[in-house]
Amino acid sequence: MTNPRAAMLVIGDEILSGRTRDANMFYLAGELTKQGIDLTEVRIVSDDQTAIVDALNALRQSYDVVVTSGGIGPTHDDITADCVALAFGVPVDVRDDARALLQAHYDRQGAELNTARLRMARIPDGATLIDNPVSIAPGFSLENVHVMAGVPAVFQAMVASLLPNLTGGAPLLSQSLRIFRGEGEIAEPLGKLAQEFSELSIGSYPFQKDGIYGANIVIRGADGAMVDRAMAKLATLFPT
Amino acid sequence: MTNPRAAMLVIGDEILSGRTRDANMFYLAGELTKQGIDLTEVRIVSDDQTAIVDALNALRQSYDVVVTSGGIGPTHDDITADCVALAFGVPVDVRDDARALLQAHYDRQGAELNTARLRMARIPDGATLIDNPVSIAPGFSLENVHVMAGVPAVFQAMVASLLPNLTGGAPLLSQSLRIFRGEGEIAEPLGKLAQEFSELSIGSYPFQKDGIYGANIVIRGADGAMVDRAMAKLATLFPT
Repeated sequence: MTNPRAAMLVIGDEILSGRTRDANMFYLAGELTKQGIDLTEVRIVSDDQTAIVDALNALRQSYDVVVTSGGIGPTHDDITADCVALAFGVPVDVRDDARALLQAHYDRQGAELNTARLRMARIPDGATLIDNPVSIAPGFSLENVHVMAGVPAVFQAMVASLLPNLTGGAPLLSQSLRIFRGEGEIAEPLGKLAQEFSELSIGSYPFQKDGIYGANIVIRGADGAMVDRAMAKLATLFPT
Repeated sequence: MTNPRAAMLVIGDEILSGRTRDANMFYLAGELTKQGIDLTEVRIVSDDQTAIVDALNALRQSYDVVVTSGGIGPTHDDITADCVALAFGVPVDVRDDARALLQAHYDRQGAELNTARLRMARIPDGATLIDNPVSIAPGFSLENVHVMAGVPAVFQAMVASLLPNLTGGAPLLSQSLRIFRGEGEIAEPLGKLAQEFSELSIGSYPFQKDGIYGANIVIRGADGAMVDRAMAKLATLFPT
């Protein structure tokens, strides 16, 4: 009984150019972990049609769940909906239900639903809409691919709309111990512990700051009692 | 005359589980951009041999430069060097020059170069070492793949060691304008500007915070005079 496996595709030049620091990946990783869905791979590609379509096809065939962020706004560099349609080989056009959402929104604002804004109602055939309580323009799900906006506040709202519809597994429990010794000193007994508790994931994440070395040892697993036993053993191996 | 294209492979469970927020990708993206190397794709995979080897082979065949971070420490979950050797089909073993670096380092510290630490001297055949002034255990380069540590201070030091050896292109110049109007209002004239200056990359990055909407328009290109002209035109389109 393994957990569902997820991948994320981040679409946009702004992270690759070093202009923006990612926020959506970090958020999604935490939310999926809580839900018992294992985020297993992330890819970041630029606003390039071939790159997006190839990544979509690779990920949707390999993972149970694929979440994308970015590229669904009204400007010329927003090409995600068209790329999803290409990847699935389905038509894409302005859809009445999405248009109605936008029309009502801009009517309330006294603004015009112009050609550019109408691009945000382009939905690939067969998709269902993902609710966007922040700025209305919807995301959408097509089979196992869930397409969301890149603006963090909107992305997070869409994740909240989507998550109840995803089947999760056993939430991964994790405990950690901070050890102020170099990894080289703790590696051998830690490796033996990992062999003994082979059903758990035992990771060592070294840190080095202001001349102080050490490692955070993180033990993860779905079986809480087993995680407890491994943590107890870890504490006896490396008394603080 | 296009710039070299780079990819990054981040190896490790800690980002995928939402435990750690990425720092290395953000750092590398900025450094490569300054050097005129276009970071074009990033993949993040877990500490899993098949995932690492497959990603390495896909990226090294598609890009001029591949930088990896993570998985070269002394603990059981550090498997990057072995995965690189597998990907290239070359042997990997403790190498004398790397061992000598570590031996001298631990002698100075009065510590033992034990079996675990010696793992950090495992270097695939044919690789050259990347200097690590922070904690000595070296990274390595094999053909176009450059393997570095995941601890940010060490990663950054290794990037500094590596960068002078990489051939860069024309540094990408960028200018930006913050426009306090919704993307839907500016999309059409912006799209025309992007067509007029098709040699430049014109990106629109919407923001939404505390009820204020707008977009940062970023114009990038190697030709500074052309970027200036496009920015001037942008400013006339959207006077502040």
